[in-house]
Amino acid sequence: MLLHYIYLLAITAEAMSGAIMGIRREMDLFGISLIATVAALGGGTVRDVLIGHYPLGWVAHPEYLAFTICAAIVTALAARKLHHFKSAFLVVDALGLVAFTIIGCDIARGFDSFHPAIVVIFGMVTGVFGGLLRDVLCNEIPLVLQREIYASVSLLTGAVYVGLLHLQVDTSVATLSALVPGFLIRLLAIRFHWELPRFNDKGIKGFE
Amino acid sequence: MLLHYIYLLAITAEAMSGAIMGIRREMDLFGISLIATVAALGGGTVRDVLIGHYPLGWVAHPEYLAFTICAAIVTALAARKLHHFKSAFLVVDALGLVAFTIIGCDIARGFDSFHPAIVVIFGMVTGVFGGLLRDVLCNEIPLVLQREIYASVSLLTGAVYVGLLHLQVDTSVATLSALVPGFLIRLLAIRFHWELPRFNDKGIKGFE
Amino acid sequence: MLLHYIYLLAITAEAMSGAIMGIRREMDLFGISLIATVAALGGGTVRDVLIGHYPLGWVAHPEYLAFTICAAIVTALAARKLHHFKSAFLVVDALGLVAFTIIGCDIARGFDSFHPAIVVIFGMVTGVFGGLLRDVLCNEIPLVLQREIYASVSLLTGAVYVGLLHLQVDTSVATLSALVPGFLIRLLAIRFHWELPRFNDKGIKGFE
Repeated sequence: MLLHYIYLLAITAEAMSGAIMGIRREMDLFGISLIATVAALGGGTVRDVLIGHYPLGWVAHPEYLAFTICAAIVTALAARKLHHFKSAFLVVDALGLVAFTIIGCDIARGFDSFHPAIVVIFGMVTGVFGGLLRDVLCNEIPLVLQREIYASVSLLTGAVYVGLLHLQVDTSVATLSALVPGFLIRLLAIRFHWELPRFNDKGIKGFE
Repeated sequence: MLLHYIYLLAITAEAMSGAIMGIRREMDLFGISLIATVAALGGGTVRDVLIGHYPLGWVAHPEYLAFTICAAIVTALAARKLHHFKSAFLVVDALGLVAFTIIGCDIARGFDSFHPAIVVIFGMVTGVFGGLLRDVLCNEIPLVLQREIYASVSLLTGAVYVGLLHLQVDTSVATLSALVPGFLIRLLAIRFHWELPRFNDKGIKGFE
Repeated sequence: MLLHYIYLLAITAEAMSGAIMGIRREMDLFGISLIATVAALGGGTVRDVLIGHYPLGWVAHPEYLAFTICAAIVTALAARKLHHFKSAFLVVDALGLVAFTIIGCDIARGFDSFHPAIVVIFGMVTGVFGGLLRDVLCNEIPLVLQREIYASVSLLTGAVYVGLLHLQVDTSVATLSALVPGFLIRLLAIRFHWELPRFNDKGIKGFE
């Protein structure tokens, strides 16, 4: 229930992040709305297509599209003022990341044959592939492949959640035990620029 | 019936537009054929994958692939002469946009549970996602996110078509009533550079 | 059976090729693992999504993901030494291309309604779309659209395989008769820079 409201808040925030990227690339109102929608609903869409889980969320609930398109229009109109809210965006995006992850795990758990690792993977797909598709459409190397721990937070959140449910912990306890630490770690990662290791590319110069 | 011939004409035109982009990026004959095929059949493919509607059109009708590959080869061989036909291309592309839209709406209408807005969205996906995938493969920000009203024409065409059918108007009347104005508006949009609004990106400078 | 071992060898090699691209673009460990996985398993995933064939290979066999992620980590740690093995990579990649193609044809042949040409196409999709998605995520025009005959080898291998099975040739004979020449032609294409024709783009200057 609470998760549903967090979900609506999160798709709004992701839609606004997509809209901002579209505005900066001088897209028109259609382009901005499409990027916003892809950023917000793309992760769940990729998950459902990879599972073969139909109808897709936004097909069954067209009101999600109304949310993302309204968020895009508001962002476009308010673009000049948005830099005042940059921190708020990062916080809601972090909340969205963990909420999307848990919702994605729940959908995948509905398929009995799935290995727990696959459930965690589909949680991560739900959390990060919206942003990944947004960046591909904007002709950028996806940020999620490069920046401070982001997908890793999603994988950790999903692993804690699926692990606790496996130990017969109550669903709402498992949700909070995965959501809260995941959210806090993401915020700390932003604050202290925590990163995953990168690697020396000497020796592979001639490879492409 | 007429729509079927317009469809074949349209996939040929879209395939040629894809082939031209491939030739300009110095792709080889395989690359040109693939881009042509994606441009022509990608919209319907994305629609069917998002709906879960199998088999895909070109899987059931492999002759569509023969069409797009032949169009690519002819385009490659005739590349030097093509600039004489630039206006013809724009006209056939406009026709294709509205025809793809109506065909996409028809497929989506076969699913009783779909909200009319979702039917219109799938019409638009059919109309514009081929060009969008073509641009992603060519490593460009998709044109449809930026240029004069294009996707908007598709949404309008679909809305008129679905709206008239909702009012129990005869299918062929609804088809023509959506097709003809959509086609004319697209031609006028090209002629007079009609555009959707863009937005000031001051104030979001520091955002990425 | 042999094909299964070649498959595991091939996904390892493709994963390493993906990891190398990720390292060169300064991705972090998550990015490198994701690119590796997409390069190795993306072709089969696209094929299965286009067919509507669920569950996907890596969903039913999560151990494939363990393979690709381990290959990515080993590549990242050993990056400095990898240039000694460049030729070995090209050989295993060529083997992977033909093995993926034949495995893809086998999956598609399970659908009785598919035209033989569609079976060959799905073999090619399996062989080349992993590398294509890898390049899109790395923000490059896909190599397969431009370089010496690669997709063509896959199409040829698939056509020989499907053709021989059509003539009631024994499966293992057909497999070897398609695999060995395909593999050799790909090696010769690398050695002698065999290319498909490209085309003069004069006359289409003003087209975009």
